[in-house]
Order: sequence, then C-alpha cells, then structure tokens
Amino acid sequence: MKPIGIIRTEFQTKDNIPIQGRLFKHKGKIEVFPEYQEGLKDLDGFSHIILIYKFHKSKGYKLRVKPFLENREKGVFATRAPRRPNPIGLTIVKLIKITDNIIEVEGVDMLDKTPLLDIKPYVPQFDHEDIKIGWLKDKFVSDSRFG
Amino acid sequence: MKPIGIIRTEFQTKDNIPIQGRLFKHKGKIEVFPEYQEGLKDLDGFSHIILIYKFHKSKGYKLRVKPFLENREKGVFATRAPRRPNPIGLTIVKLIKITDNIIEVEGVDMLDKTPLLDIKPYVPQFDHEDIKIGWLKDKFVSDSRFG
Repeated sequence: MKPIGIIRTEFQTKDNIPIQGRLFKHKGKIEVFPEYQEGLKDLDGFSHIILIYKFHKSKGYKLRVKPFLENREKGVFATRAPRRPNPIGLTIVKLIKITDNIIEVEGVDMLDKTPLLDIKPYVPQFDHEDIKIGWLKDKFVSDSRFG
Repeated sequence: MKPIGIIRTEFQTKDNIPIQGRLFKHKGKIEVFPEYQEGLKDLDGFSHIILIYKFHKSKGYKLRVKPFLENREKGVFATRAPRRPNPIGLTIVKLIKITDNIIEVEGVDMLDKTPLLDIKPYVPQFDHEDIKIGWLKDKFVSDSRFG
C-alpha cells in the first residue's frame, strides 16, 4: 500500500475535526500525485466519491473503544475509531471540481496531509431496504466516515 | 496491512462473480480471526456492513480500464476494477447473523478466500441529495462494490 495522493484539510489536530463532517460541509483539496492523474478520467460525472485513506497518526489499536457521546464501550468494528487493526479510513465526500490532478471536495473530516490510498465512485444502493444503524440510532450522528 | 479474517464465497474464479452482487444475493461467510473477535461487539445492531478487503489475485494496475458492458475506457478511479494502484476492494453487504467469530452476510461479490482488512458499520447518508452516477447512469448496474 502506497499513497496515491494527499488530502488537504483545515484540521491540523484531531481535536478540531468535526464529529459530523457532513453537516459542517468543510471543504478540502485532494492532491492526486501526477503519475495517477490519468486514472481520474470520468470521475467528474459522479456527485460523490469514496475516499479510502490511511489514519496516519493512529498508533496501535484497541478492540473495545468508547466513541464520542457514548459511555459504553463498543467493538471497534462497530465504530469509526481510527485505532483499528488496519488503520484504514473511509469518507464519502461531495465532489465539487476536478482540475488536472486536484480534486475539490466537500464534507471532509480527516486530518490535513492524510495519505490517500484509493478513490471509488459512490453509487447509492439499498434505497428500499430497511437499514438499521445499531447503537448509533439514538445518537444525533450522521457521520460521513461511517460510509 | 494484515488480514483480520478471510471471506468465504462460492466464487473460485473471477469469471463466475456476479456483476450485480446485490441482485443475486449470494451468501458468504466471513471468518474473523479469533484474536479480533472482541472487536465485533455491537456490530450485530447494524443491518449492513462495509467490508474492506484486498484484491489478492490482482497484479499490477492500469490507469485506464474497460469495464464490463462498456466499450470506452474509463479512468480506474471511476470504476471498481480490481487492478488499481492499491488493490483495495469495498463491498457493502447485508448482515444476516454473527456467531462468535463468524459473520454470515448476503450480497458478496468477491473471490473465495479474499483477505479481509477491515469492517465498518454502514450508515446511509445523502438521502436528500442529488446523486449523480456518471458513466454508470446508462448501465443497468447497481453493484455493491461501488459502495
């Protein structure tokens, strides 16, 4: 796994990252390294894209974590906690504009200089299914990092 | 990056993988390695989960790819092609049951014995936004691998 780019955001430390990235609509710029620019062709037809990145400031992991706004410990795989066995992050963002190798997006919630691993088009599904969101149902949280 | 488990499916070769996993509702079993089982706590409250895995049979990558049912080449990041700079796959599946370290799911579309890297809860969003799905709009495709 090697970075294909860098995500630029206004968040220098984890303390000021919005819990609900989507509500705050923070903008960010993704710098895809020039050698991968050709792979961005046709991406601009999608309104939303999935960013897969590395939690580069995360060290080690815990299998039980206490999420924000929650008193009881949850299994790490039922959360978005960055300290996971594989420190992979996922955020769905709104695509604003692609200029050469720079992608402007809205709804970022990762640290500045986060290494980007992959981009995938976002295609909604399960529109007519009954979605259950577990322990989150009582929280006022709709966090783009949950996907 | 190290596997946290193995995804068991009926697909031994890429030739018989369904293009539209969601429509065919193929079932699969995820064997999470016992040392990570504790991290599955509370996951059973979610109806759908995001599987992040490695395209373990994929070698190398191409920045322009010709997807199934499509004549013109697309940028790899606008597709779900497995031959990507970082061979990371993503599928949203329906959770059926968790028994100890085994997760039964529906909607798999990856090869048997695919190494699992991460599991995240699926929480729908963008319900009221105008989603555009680019070159896919004319295809009869709603593939869970697009996320």
